[in-house]
Amino acid sequence: MPLELNSSAPGFEDAFKDLLAAKREIQEDVQNSVAAILADVRERGDAAVLEHTARFDRVTLTADTMRVTAAEIDAALASIDPGLLQALELAAERIEDFHRRQKPDALSYTDHAGVRLGARWTSIGAVGLYVPGGTAAYPSSVLMNALPAKVAGVERVTMVVPTPDGKLNPLVLAAAKLAGVTEIYRIGGAQAVGALAYGTATIGAVDKIVGPGNAYVAAAKRQVFGTVGIDMIAGPSEILVVADAANDPAWIAADLLSQAEHDTSAQAILITDDGAFAEAVKRAVDGHLKTLPRAAIAGESWRGHGAIIVVSKLDDAIPLVDRLAPEHLELAVAEPDALAARIRNAGAIFLGRHTPEAIGDYVAGPNHVLPTARSARFSSGLNLLDFMKRTTLVGCDPGALAAIGPAAVALANAEGLGAHALSVSIRLNGAPQ
Amino acid sequence: MPLELNSSAPGFEDAFKDLLAAKREIQEDVQNSVAAILADVRERGDAAVLEHTARFDRVTLTADTMRVTAAEIDAALASIDPGLLQALELAAERIEDFHRRQKPDALSYTDHAGVRLGARWTSIGAVGLYVPGGTAAYPSSVLMNALPAKVAGVERVTMVVPTPDGKLNPLVLAAAKLAGVTEIYRIGGAQAVGALAYGTATIGAVDKIVGPGNAYVAAAKRQVFGTVGIDMIAGPSEILVVADAANDPAWIAADLLSQAEHDTSAQAILITDDGAFAEAVKRAVDGHLKTLPRAAIAGESWRGHGAIIVVSKLDDAIPLVDRLAPEHLELAVAEPDALAARIRNAGAIFLGRHTPEAIGDYVAGPNHVLPTARSARFSSGLNLLDFMKRTTLVGCDPGALAAIGPAAVALANAEGLGAHALSVSIRLNGAPQ
Repeated sequence: MPLELNSSAPGFEDAFKDLLAAKREIQEDVQNSVAAILADVRERGDAAVLEHTARFDRVTLTADTMRVTAAEIDAALASIDPGLLQALELAAERIEDFHRRQKPDALSYTDHAGVRLGARWTSIGAVGLYVPGGTAAYPSSVLMNALPAKVAGVERVTMVVPTPDGKLNPLVLAAAKLAGVTEIYRIGGAQAVGALAYGTATIGAVDKIVGPGNAYVAAAKRQVFGTVGIDMIAGPSEILVVADAANDPAWIAADLLSQAEHDTSAQAILITDDGAFAEAVKRAVDGHLKTLPRAAIAGESWRGHGAIIVVSKLDDAIPLVDRLAPEHLELAVAEPDALAARIRNAGAIFLGRHTPEAIGDYVAGPNHVLPTARSARFSSGLNLLDFMKRTTLVGCDPGALAAIGPAAVALANAEGLGAHALSVSIRLNGAPQ
Repeated sequence: MPLELNSSAPGFEDAFKDLLAAKREIQEDVQNSVAAILADVRERGDAAVLEHTARFDRVTLTADTMRVTAAEIDAALASIDPGLLQALELAAERIEDFHRRQKPDALSYTDHAGVRLGARWTSIGAVGLYVPGGTAAYPSSVLMNALPAKVAGVERVTMVVPTPDGKLNPLVLAAAKLAGVTEIYRIGGAQAVGALAYGTATIGAVDKIVGPGNAYVAAAKRQVFGTVGIDMIAGPSEILVVADAANDPAWIAADLLSQAEHDTSAQAILITDDGAFAEAVKRAVDGHLKTLPRAAIAGESWRGHGAIIVVSKLDDAIPLVDRLAPEHLELAVAEPDALAARIRNAGAIFLGRHTPEAIGDYVAGPNHVLPTARSARFSSGLNLLDFMKRTTLVGCDPGALAAIGPAAVALANAEGLGAHALSVSIRLNGAPQ
C-alpha cells in the first residue's frame, strides 16, 4: 500500500526524511564488463562493435549493413497509420517551436575602461543520440532528444538503436525522419556508446552523447564522459500532484498512475489538504488498476513507492515540494500560478486541473527529459543550451590594458605567478605597439 | 624540448592526432579511500570530519572552532596591502559586472492552440565552494566561483578551505569577504566534500559543490554527484596562441609560459605561419626561463607538453584550433575578430596583440574557470547559469486540452502507455469541468 503521512502528526519529519532518502533503484554493477567492451571498441573499432552486437542482440551485421538505409527509413514512415503520423507531426512542430524560442543571446560591449567583452554561443559539432530498443523504444523520446539538437544547429546528429533479434520499431525511424535524423546505426549497448565516443571506420566520433538507456548504457556514458559530453543519467520517473478537494479523484488517480506505469521503480506522490479526497483518490487508483494494460507495473510502483501526504492547508505543501524537488509537479488547485510562483524546485510544472502531466510527455512542447531523484534542486530539463556551448571574448587595446593591467600584475604577483605578471607587464612597459 | 610540427610535412596528421590524444595527467586511484571517508562523514557527521581533518591537515578542531569567525575574516581583510586590496576590488567589480549581464530571460506565452507555455529560471538554494589550501589557494579563484553564485541569487554560499598545519592565506579570506561569503569552514579534502553533500550537525547540506581541488577532492565530487550537483572536474591548464610574425616574440613567449607555470602537466601550444618567428619565440622562452620564479615548473611543462606548429597560412590554423578545442585561445594577429568568428571550439578567446591571457585570469570580467582537455567541444566555462536551474510550465484550459489532447492520447496508446492516455482522455470525455 502507498505510504500515508499527515504533516501535522508526530513523527512526520522523520518519516518524510525517510521518503526523501529512499533509494528506488538497484544499481547493477556492470562497470567492469562495460570497461572491457569500451576498450575493445576503442582498439578494434567496427570489428568489436559487430561482435558485441552479434553476442548481445543476436543480429549478424557487417560494416555495410550497420547503417539503416534511406529506403528502410522511408518505408517505416510510409507504414505508419495516418492519424498517428499526424500526432507525431503535431508533437514535432510543437517541440520545435518551444525550443526555437530558447535561443540564447550573444553578449558584446565595450566597457568604460575600453575593454571589449563578449560571450557567444555556438552549437556542438556532432551529437550522438542513444535510443533504447525493444519495448522501451519511444518515438516521443526521439523527438525530445533530436529536435533540440537540430534547433541548436548541430550539424551532425547520429542515432544508434539496438535491434534485438532484428526487430526495430518503425515509429522510432519515423520520428527520427521527422526530426531530420538520417544517420542511424542498428547497434546498442556499451558498444554503441563506445563507437560514438571513439569513432570507428564506419561511424564518425561525436562530441556529445544524449538519450536514455539501460544500466550498461548509463555506465558506458559515465565512463566515456570527458572524451565526449553526456546528458544527465536519468533515474526512474516521478510525479508529485498537489490537489485540493475540488478535483475529480478519478482524474488525479489517472495522473498518479501515468508515471507509476513507467516502471516498478517509478514514484507517484499526492499531497492534498483533504483527507477524504485522499481516500477517494486511493479508491480511484484501485479502480483504474482493474482495467489498465500496465496495471501490474503501475500497481507495484504505487504500492512500493507511492505516497499520500495530507497537509492542513495547501501552503504547507510548498516546503515539502521544494524538498522533494519532483521531476513532474502537477498543481491541480484553484490558483495554480500563485502556488507555482512560490515553488523553487521542480523539473516541470503543470498548471491547473486540465493539464495532466502526460500532455507534457508528448505534445505540449517543453522537453520531457527532466531531472529526477531530487536533482531539480540543482539541474534543469534538457533544453537548447545542452546542445550549445559558450565562448567568452576579451579584447584590449594598449589603453584598455593600461587601465586594468596593473591590477592583474599585482594579483599575479600576490599569487606567486611570475609569468602571468610578466605577460601583462611586458606589454605595459613601452614595448613596441 | 617542445614538439615541433609543420602542417605541410608528411606524417603531420598522425603526429597531430598523437598530440590530441596525449594524456598529461596521471590519475591517482583514490576511489576506495575517498569512498570510505565519505561513508564515514555520512554516518558520523562532525566527529568524522574532525578526525579526518586532524589526520590529513594536522589541525585539531572542534565543532565550535571549525568555522572561521567574523573577527578572523575582518582581520584578514585589514591585513592586506592597500594596493593589493584595490586590485582585488577591481577584479570583484569587473567579474560581478560581466556576470550580471548574463541573467537569462524567462519565457511566457500562450500559443495559438490556447496552451500557456513558459520557462523560468531560479537560483540554486545553497552552494558549497571548495577552495584548495596551501600554495594553490588563489584569491582569484574565490572571486570567480563565489561571485557568479551571488549574482545568480544563491541565498547560501558556504566555503570550505583546508588549513594544513593551521595555515590559512589571508588573501583567500579577504576575497571571500569581498564576494559576500561569510560562512567559511577550515576543512578540506573528501571529508569537506562529504560534509557539504550530506550535511553535519554544524554544516548544513548544500545543493551543489563547485571549485577546484586535488585528486581526493575530484574523486569525492564525482562520488557525491547525484546527491548534489557538481561543476566540471578541471584538468591541467592549457593555452593555444595563434600568432603571426608581426608580434614581439618575447610577449608571446611570456604568454605561453603564463600557463606552463601553473603545473608541470599544463600545456602551451603556438601556431604560427612563420618558421623564423617560431624560432624566435623558442629563444625568448628560454630567455624568460632564466629569470622567472616558477621556471622549473614552467620549463618542465614546456619541454614535456609544449608544441609549436608552423602552418602555411593562418587560415590553416582554424581546423587545428577546433580539434584542439583549447581552454584559452589567444589570437595575436592583425584581424583577430575575423579569425575568431571562424572558430567553433574554445573556452575563451583573447583578441589581438594587447590581450594576454593572464588579463582574463584576474580582471577582465569573464570567468577563468574554463573547459580543459578538449571539452570546449561540448561544454562552457563557469557562468551564471551554473548557479541557476530552469523549470518549464504548461497550462491548459479545457479548450487547449481539447486541441492537443487527442494527439497525446494517440501517441500514448502507440507507446503502450494506457494510464498516460487515460489521464488525458478522462478529461476530454465530458467529465465535470
